[in-house]
Amino acid sequence: MIDLHLIGIGSGDPDHLTRAAAAAMNAADVILLPRKRDAASDLIELRRSLCAAVLRGHTRVVEFDLPERGESDAYLDAVGDWHDAIAARWATEIASHLPNGGRLALLIWGDPSLYDSSLRIADRLRAGGMMLRVHVVPGITSLQALTAAHAIPLNTLAAPVVITTGRRLRAEGWPPAVDTLAVMLDGTCAFTSIDPLGVMIWWGAYLGLPSQALVAGPLADVSSTIVARRARLRAEQGWIMDTYLLRRSKGAA
Amino acid sequence: MIDLHLIGIGSGDPDHLTRAAAAAMNAADVILLPRKRDAASDLIELRRSLCAAVLRGHTRVVEFDLPERGESDAYLDAVGDWHDAIAARWATEIASHLPNGGRLALLIWGDPSLYDSSLRIADRLRAGGMMLRVHVVPGITSLQALTAAHAIPLNTLAAPVVITTGRRLRAEGWPPAVDTLAVMLDGTCAFTSIDPLGVMIWWGAYLGLPSQALVAGPLADVSSTIVARRARLRAEQGWIMDTYLLRRSKGAA
Ligand SMILES: C[S@@+](CC[C@H](N)C(=O)[O-])C[C@H]1O[C@@H](n2cnc3c(N)ncnc32)[C@H](O)[C@@H]1O
Ligand SMILES: C[S@@+](CC[C@H](N)C(=O)[O-])C[C@H]1O[C@@H](n2cnc3c(N)ncnc32)[C@H](O)[C@@H]1O
Repeated sequence: MIDLHLIGIGSGDPDHLTRAAAAAMNAADVILLPRKRDAASDLIELRRSLCAAVLRGHTRVVEFDLPERGESDAYLDAVGDWHDAIAARWATEIASHLPNGGRLALLIWGDPSLYDSSLRIADRLRAGGMMLRVHVVPGITSLQALTAAHAIPLNTLAAPVVITTGRRLRAEGWPPAVDTLAVMLDGTCAFTSIDPLGVMIWWGAYLGLPSQALVAGPLADVSSTIVARRARLRAEQGWIMDTYLLRRSKGAA
Repeated sequence: MIDLHLIGIGSGDPDHLTRAAAAAMNAADVILLPRKRDAASDLIELRRSLCAAVLRGHTRVVEFDLPERGESDAYLDAVGDWHDAIAARWATEIASHLPNGGRLALLIWGDPSLYDSSLRIADRLRAGGMMLRVHVVPGITSLQALTAAHAIPLNTLAAPVVITTGRRLRAEGWPPAVDTLAVMLDGTCAFTSIDPLGVMIWWGAYLGLPSQALVAGPLADVSSTIVARRARLRAEQGWIMDTYLLRRSKGAA
């Protein structure tokens, strides 16, 4: 039997680690650290130094190369194939490092519930017949790092919020019946595709990291600032992760 | 100058506290703990014992009685008046405990960004002329405690999520264009007001507390179980806090 612990580690700031996360890291027999071939090498570095800072005992840290994501026009198909490939890689690592079962941990950026596929990949292993129990340790999400850095509420009083992706915002526009939108996974500044009238934006990149960047203001005023700043930061650092909150005043749109 | 630190402490489990939260508590001159007259006395107890466990130094813990919320048909008016009254109470406590300024902290259930009014109350103090700087320390929300306890993702692959209140769900029904709903602040089991066909529910009460209760399943099958269980728990404990996730299969509705 494998006990898989998906441990949310927050979105950059090591002080966002919870006591439960530190305890789960130390209780693991093996922590798997995926290496990505792309430029976000700071992220693996961050996980390595978190392990060095937190681990006290017997836990082994094992790095492995994450399969590359295929390029396909059919977005969901490509992602599905990619998750199959990751599941196969996890299975190989488990077979070689925990042949008799034990406690395996993965360190998840932010919280394992939010736009992260580890739970879905674990489902694939179970569907493939592996004896696997999944445990989740929550972590501070990048959205919470965003609202905390700007000192703003996610929702207005008793009002709903939509959490969505840049892809959706661009394809479908502002969703109906809601005035606050939190946008993640946006590689193309989808906020430039909506009518900025009456809309405020709070944007953040590298949240919780030393290079954290913040911009806030009326979308009409700061949209091009963010586009330019994002392009420059991305060129400088070689990678970027950013997220933002959009709020329109009642009556706008 | 007052530096107000709104510190998210998670939704019950003391191990959900982050290192940043513990550090901010210790750096405060004064921590204000509101006492509510209603039955949720476990909650003030939890905050007291958190302070006892975490504080190492000079921080003073000051309890004060939270004003009672007025009963009014106009929900938002009543809440607005209540927030005015709370702001006035904070101002009194600040004047008596930090007359020369300093670091004030409030311990916020979950995360300060999510259905919490402390940021809005702080705005009132600033609008009233107080020199106030607001800092936010994020905390694990009850929604994260819910998805972690059930080991489920918040969103399905690349899909959006709506976070809303029981009041809204009951008044407006299932919001358009989204298949996942997270519902908070629901005193009346609003999930009974929607068509359960094709809908799954993951429900949790007292999340992170020793009395944590979980129910999951097709809404049609478990709806009445949850209603009965909630009523019984509430009667036994004298209070309840619960939240749930609803997901409908594509094509339902
Ligand atoms: C695959 S999702 C993972 C989200 C993560 N599970 C969480 O809880 O925040 C990656 C997206 O999260 C956001 N993100 C994650 N970390 C971030 C950071 N440090 N700063 C800004 N955005 C971040 C970006 O929108 C990015 O495209
Ligand atoms: C005023 S809101 C505060 C939310 C909080 N700021 C958070 O981040 O979770 C109170 C609502 O949060 C939810 N909630 C808070 N703590 C909870 C717990 N321990 N278990 C279940 N639900 C909880 C309930 O829906 C409750 O009505």
